Amino acid sequence: MPGTTTKESTKTLLLEKGTEIMLEKGYNNTGIMEVLQSTGVPKGSFYHYFESKEDFGLQIINYFDQASKEKLRTTVLNQSISPLQRLKSYCELGIEHFLSQKCRKGCLISNLSQEMADQNEIFRARLLEIQNENTKVFATCLKEAQEAGEISKSFNTNDLAELFQAAWGGAVMRSKICKTVEPMQSFMDMMFGRMLTP
Amino acid sequence: MPGTTTKESTKTLLLEKGTEIMLEKGYNNTGIMEVLQSTGVPKGSFYHYFESKEDFGLQIINYFDQASKEKLRTTVLNQSISPLQRLKSYCELGIEHFLSQKCRKGCLISNLSQEMADQNEIFRARLLEIQNENTKVFATCLKEAQEAGEISKSFNTNDLAELFQAAWGGAVMRSKICKTVEPMQSFMDMMFGRMLTP
Repeated sequence: MPGTTTKESTKTLLLEKGTEIMLEKGYNNTGIMEVLQSTGVPKGSFYHYFESKEDFGLQIINYFDQASKEKLRTTVLNQSISPLQRLKSYCELGIEHFLSQKCRKGCLISNLSQEMADQNEIFRARLLEIQNENTKVFATCLKEAQEAGEISKSFNTNDLAELFQAAWGGAVMRSKICKTVEPMQSFMDMMFGRMLTP
Repeated sequence: MPGTTTKESTKTLLLEKGTEIMLEKGYNNTGIMEVLQSTGVPKGSFYHYFESKEDFGLQIINYFDQASKEKLRTTVLNQSISPLQRLKSYCELGIEHFLSQKCRKGCLISNLSQEMADQNEIFRARLLEIQNENTKVFATCLKEAQEAGEISKSFNTNDLAELFQAAWGGAVMRSKICKTVEPMQSFMDMMFGRMLTP
């Protein structure tokens, strides 16, 4: 059904463009009109796919999360390489991607968490859910690194996963302000060269 | 001169209220009208003290930074306690303050860095300057901890200061989403109980 394809493409186009704009400008500062103008989609169509700006924002979060989960699948969950190497691949991919974006944007989940945590309970609940899912993926990988003897057995891998993600998110934020990937690189040097070494 | 005092109080009132609102809502989402309504200051007076919303935002950043520097002075720079204990005091004060704010708001420098890094070069430059100043304070304290034998001599204290702040900022963001100080507490356990131990 070509009709279905077109409808799906329009929705995907709106989600794609909305993600790009929201990554740079945040949720509150993103206007629906700007999204419509940059895609050429009429207003009526927009409200066919999305109930409201809030619904659009939540669907953008899910759209971004799907892409993030795919990145986790090819790195942190990639059983063909060692657990510690998987975490390194995740960070290397992050640096590569951030450079390709000219050190702009960063992670939508972090950006919106910072912006919306005190503003909207529905957003907060969804962002918390995604953060928790991701922390579990990192904790499992760190547990496997421990079992493989790559990191010390004395770590609490849940706490370590929290620290790993907090520090990585902080390094990305710092890189956004510096407009270089040095803080992300420094994170990798410290984490893999010093903190996680047995 | 009582007139001068009143003028200064009005400006301080606008900066105080502006800081509170901007901490929760960010820069773009904070309206000057909301600040005026909540303080009872007329619009004309506002533009007597501030050239524009941007000028107001930048002065709020400086106002917040002054208070932050005072917190650093009583903790990280407090020569009457050991360097490592100073860093602990800083985090303990942070947890106490965050609890008193009902796990809302967080750090204005981090919040606005996340929001404004891609949006406004003047904000970005000022936020970068403040971040760099703070990193230097942490690096000096960590260097002193090293000299006092409290942490391993093998650390690069500049990189460690970057990691410490990135992870702390990330933990605050996570606490804002969880609405508990558990991530900040977990940061302290990991950092002081595990990562920094010789």
